[in-house]
Amino acid sequence: MFEECLNHVRERSPLVHNITNYVTVNDVANIILACGGSPIMSDEPEDVEDITSVCGGLNINIGTLNKRSIEAMHLAGKKAAELGHPILLDPVGAGASRLRTQTAVSLMEEIPFTVIRGNVSELKALAQGSTTTRGVDADAADAVTENNLDAMVRFVKDYAARTGSIIVITGAIDLAADADRCFVIRNGRPEMGAITGTGCQLSGLMTAYLTANPEDHLQAAAAAVCLMGLAGQIGFSHMQEGDGNSTYRNRIIDAVYNMDAKTLAEGALFEIK
Amino acid sequence: MFEECLNHVRERSPLVHNITNYVTVNDVANIILACGGSPIMSDEPEDVEDITSVCGGLNINIGTLNKRSIEAMHLAGKKAAELGHPILLDPVGAGASRLRTQTAVSLMEEIPFTVIRGNVSELKALAQGSTTTRGVDADAADAVTENNLDAMVRFVKDYAARTGSIIVITGAIDLAADADRCFVIRNGRPEMGAITGTGCQLSGLMTAYLTANPEDHLQAAAAAVCLMGLAGQIGFSHMQEGDGNSTYRNRIIDAVYNMDAKTLAEGALFEIK
Amino acid sequence: MFEECLNHVRERSPLVHNITNYVTVNDVANIILACGGSPIMSDEPEDVEDITSVCGGLNINIGTLNKRSIEAMHLAGKKAAELGHPILLDPVGAGASRLRTQTAVSLMEEIPFTVIRGNVSELKALAQGSTTTRGVDADAADAVTENNLDAMVRFVKDYAARTGSIIVITGAIDLAADADRCFVIRNGRPEMGAITGTGCQLSGLMTAYLTANPEDHLQAAAAAVCLMGLAGQIGFSHMQEGDGNSTYRNRIIDAVYNMDAKTLAEGALFEIK
Repeated sequence: MFEECLNHVRERSPLVHNITNYVTVNDVANIILACGGSPIMSDEPEDVEDITSVCGGLNINIGTLNKRSIEAMHLAGKKAAELGHPILLDPVGAGASRLRTQTAVSLMEEIPFTVIRGNVSELKALAQGSTTTRGVDADAADAVTENNLDAMVRFVKDYAARTGSIIVITGAIDLAADADRCFVIRNGRPEMGAITGTGCQLSGLMTAYLTANPEDHLQAAAAAVCLMGLAGQIGFSHMQEGDGNSTYRNRIIDAVYNMDAKTLAEGALFEIK
Repeated sequence: MFEECLNHVRERSPLVHNITNYVTVNDVANIILACGGSPIMSDEPEDVEDITSVCGGLNINIGTLNKRSIEAMHLAGKKAAELGHPILLDPVGAGASRLRTQTAVSLMEEIPFTVIRGNVSELKALAQGSTTTRGVDADAADAVTENNLDAMVRFVKDYAARTGSIIVITGAIDLAADADRCFVIRNGRPEMGAITGTGCQLSGLMTAYLTANPEDHLQAAAAAVCLMGLAGQIGFSHMQEGDGNSTYRNRIIDAVYNMDAKTLAEGALFEIK
Repeated sequence: MFEECLNHVRERSPLVHNITNYVTVNDVANIILACGGSPIMSDEPEDVEDITSVCGGLNINIGTLNKRSIEAMHLAGKKAAELGHPILLDPVGAGASRLRTQTAVSLMEEIPFTVIRGNVSELKALAQGSTTTRGVDADAADAVTENNLDAMVRFVKDYAARTGSIIVITGAIDLAADADRCFVIRNGRPEMGAITGTGCQLSGLMTAYLTANPEDHLQAAAAAVCLMGLAGQIGFSHMQEGDGNSTYRNRIIDAVYNMDAKTLAEGALFEIK
């Protein structure tokens, strides 16, 4: 089923509007191009409604939010919702500051997000009001493990039901769920955590997948998670002596660029709970 | 003749002030260093006049414009014009939003740009008021091809005459023209389109070339286009199994870094119409 | 002694808040991860105090300052000082514009910086009010050389005494000094100057080292300088035919990622004056 998702992205070449942080924005643009989409970045309130209108999907990432870009997020989100576009929220650092938590909450009140994707600490901060987020990385104590897997699957399904959004939590084990079904995904490599912005990249990639696959957004989200993790595995297999996290970053995007439907279908490691 | 242009950049090490988007800015800085120039970025209205004054040329790119940076573009542009510096406009996304089109038009009314460089959709949007720009990439229907080449050459020469600027349109076939002469350039690789910001990079590189070559700006602009395309060809020849668009980005900048005058002169593919 | 510094960073995984420029921010994040730290970026005045509070150190870089980020620098700096965090100032372009010089001076009046790290022209501009900075790169006439070394060592010690901060000047020869001791460091490669942001990267890395090594900040600063230079040497040894400044950027960060304590200790080239 993921073959079709990948093929749709390559055939339909979805235009994705990104309001995203300036730390990882270049990698986000290149990974959207790598998967077959086309990225546009705009975060000026006077510009975003026009830009969202020529696109097919919207990726909102609060990693380096400011008052201007927060206003742009609200305007773009409302316009995208009017137009029926898929909209993704990446609540970077929710739980680490009041502004980040409040911004995510306020966006969620106003905009019907198709997907909310973050690490487990960010999602717990939003769902439970807890604030254990360690900066922009997940707190180890929150991690999804084989031991707490069933409880975490219940958590994401419940939160999906409450929000009406697909909930995606990424980490050593990734979860992508709506109220009824949860994809439990085991692709990826631990070394991906030593690259800045693999989460942001996944959010951009996933928005391209959502945009090109209106038929089944949950499946599209899960395909994007598997693709990113599998690209991490393939990229790692190309690592040579002396290579480290900077080269690994390039190799992952390269692996997304070279991915074909058959490789994705055969390499995707998931079960549905 | 391009040998001299390249040698001037390496000898004179031009300082280039860039007001550019945050998506591709790092690659813009590295490609300016690669060609032999020195980049400075500043987009705060209170800072830009001082910074422009210590530089030799100005590169204005509206890719992630906001109200503050638009004000900075006007201030820097007027100061650079006073100082007789070459000034380049990259009207990213003109035609895709009112703010982008208006900003480009308003800058062109106030600042005597040496060069306006964009894709064909952006330039048509500015010249003809048409708005077919597909986000920040050119619309396929607009492409310069062997079939419409003569008409497109007339278009860029006419628009150069009307604006008093050198007009550069890049795509599968590149055009660089003033009112009288048009360089038709066939360097480059289609895979360059899968990298974010090759256009932005060319604008930075070209501003370095304009700054170091006051003797003949059209020739300098054409040399920069040939250099970028040839670097794309050379970079591609170094691609290995598993490499994709992210590694290709590095290899192109690397090829600019390693380019010598003889290689450029022998590899440049152009005719003058 | 540098072994211990490196091991502390890997063991303690310091969280570093960065208010830094958008040109080199991605490389700053990746090099902090490469050395064993964890980066967070935030430059919105309403966000920075919370973010600094969950971190252990603060890196302030004025490379693309604006009015909003300047306000954020002051707020974050004061909060970090209250919390006893190490704070680093990278006065990019001080001397090249009034706003940059004044911002650096005003920050130094208000915030007790642990380290001020820049190129020689920036530091001279701050210390002597001279304004020979050539954009964001050092003026060749200012360079630290074997001939003026003793005078430069006196200069940095004097300036350290006056400011109460550790002063770090990087270039062909690097100096890191407090009022009493000056590390004279000869690691590095001249080719590092053709990469944008190796100075910004060092500032990020150094803040991670300061944060994880409260026992001896001068030694931590010197260790970071040696590490960066040695990574430049090791990265260069992996360069292949066709590689240039863009690939070299990746290889340096990779070398930081792969650095172990023994390699650092054996490769560090320094004397104390």
